[in-house]
Amino acid sequence: MTNPRADRVREVARLAQRSARARRRQFLAEGPQAVREALRLDADRRDRGAAAVVDDVYASAEFLARHPEIADLAERTGRLRLADDAVLAAMADTVSPQGIVAVCRLLDVSLEEVLAPGPSLVAVMCRVQDPGNAGTILRAADSAGADAVVLTAGSVDVYNPKAVRSTAGSLFHVPVVLGQDPSVLAERLRAAGVGILAADGTGPLDLDELQDASAARRSRVGGAAPDVPEASAGYRLEEPTAWLFGNEAQGLSDEEKELADHRVAVPLYGAAESLNVGTAATVCLYASARSQRRSAPAG
Amino acid sequence: MTNPRADRVREVARLAQRSARARRRQFLAEGPQAVREALRLDADRRDRGAAAVVDDVYASAEFLARHPEIADLAERTGRLRLADDAVLAAMADTVSPQGIVAVCRLLDVSLEEVLAPGPSLVAVMCRVQDPGNAGTILRAADSAGADAVVLTAGSVDVYNPKAVRSTAGSLFHVPVVLGQDPSVLAERLRAAGVGILAADGTGPLDLDELQDASAARRSRVGGAAPDVPEASAGYRLEEPTAWLFGNEAQGLSDEEKELADHRVAVPLYGAAESLNVGTAATVCLYASARSQRRSAPAG
Repeated sequence: MTNPRADRVREVARLAQRSARARRRQFLAEGPQAVREALRLDADRRDRGAAAVVDDVYASAEFLARHPEIADLAERTGRLRLADDAVLAAMADTVSPQGIVAVCRLLDVSLEEVLAPGPSLVAVMCRVQDPGNAGTILRAADSAGADAVVLTAGSVDVYNPKAVRSTAGSLFHVPVVLGQDPSVLAERLRAAGVGILAADGTGPLDLDELQDASAARRSRVGGAAPDVPEASAGYRLEEPTAWLFGNEAQGLSDEEKELADHRVAVPLYGAAESLNVGTAATVCLYASARSQRRSAPAG
Repeated sequence: MTNPRADRVREVARLAQRSARARRRQFLAEGPQAVREALRLDADRRDRGAAAVVDDVYASAEFLARHPEIADLAERTGRLRLADDAVLAAMADTVSPQGIVAVCRLLDVSLEEVLAPGPSLVAVMCRVQDPGNAGTILRAADSAGADAVVLTAGSVDVYNPKAVRSTAGSLFHVPVVLGQDPSVLAERLRAAGVGILAADGTGPLDLDELQDASAARRSRVGGAAPDVPEASAGYRLEEPTAWLFGNEAQGLSDEEKELADHRVAVPLYGAAESLNVGTAATVCLYASARSQRRSAPAG
């Protein structure tokens, strides 16, 4: 493909718009990392006879020569087309396109699908607006081994090109649930045995206290019934947990906070007034992951 | 001030350029949070008879009416001028200026100043390029109570308007040292009794193991000589530590890694290949802060 004004090129470029993505149930992955992860998931699904993820791949000959593993995966889809740099630039959202784009099918799943196997760790974004923050939180959730990421109604579209880029491929690793009503979500999480913690800088519980209480229980496994330090309010960080993270400007609303079992603050040791939501989410999710994994039976 | 083309307005706007900042030894803080923190630091320094931080403040009458605390601080500098929105827009780097900007003096200090009192926790950015990442790491360092942030030569300018915004005021809380040569820095840190850890996804040590070893020592205070689990290689996370964080695309160079006592990986529990540098820095700095503070004598 050499004509950047071709209809097909325009159609791909239009996936930068939320309305086009919603109508066609497709979005765009750009660059080697995102496209490779999309292709890996696609290959994995095809092997299992499940629905495809990647509908089309466009790449330059030069890119494919430089990335044989991605070229091989792309070939296997049967949907790879060569495109020159002008075409790729017209398709992509980034100023400097990186030689490959893939048109992918929307990946989000239902809340039921995520809750059925009994998740241990869930990240919930409540009206997070910045695509970079949403992508960073999704990537941190993947890194911490979260079982799912949920976005409430009114959040940024996770298929926004900047959000997709910020996930660095994690969008293709972690199941994502979109458009949830917070109170229905809280009810369902609880029914599935998942506790709910609100990340809230003004919360009465301190994340370090929760971690200490968890560590104290760990060090007494097989011994006497563990003391639960009062500061943890009885919440066990090692148990299945969904964390609520709020809007970057306003934080969690009062209504959102009330849905949680507890409001937990990440301690601020310096003079900073607050953490950004991506940073707070990282600390909270890693604290849970650490408590859960260190408490699990070895092996 | 009502003329957005006035010489003074152009001079302020020019502080968006690194060369102008370096020549005039000034930079621009924009918006209520950054300017308030600049003014607080300025008031604190003036009270102590130290050099001023804020040279000039420009704000709209409407902004000052809405923010009486900031208006009061700004008045006390004797350098507050009223400016209308067109002037503020011409001065500021952001598309939607927030009613106030302050011309500040460069704040960075010498390495000697930072090392003299014996720092416990230092964040070192090695050739970090993205201003948003640099700001996020500086804010995370402040949150974790770090004593200083050091940038090596070839790093982004921390006075870049986007970096300043991303620090959310933390630039005015934590001493910053710029332009360091990595090997000289490592030597000085070691001479000051500060251990050096490289945050490196491929590192042989696992941050969780270091934390476990630290917690195990804590739980045996006053008892038998503590066992040091082998996986921690004898490094004590509760001791004074400088963390090295690498360039976002390439990570730490081999030379940078060799300057560290140990290379430490943040565990990846999911399918993510790596953490972004801001996220990794947050997890590492909080792990150190937690180990250090939990080990410190109570009170």
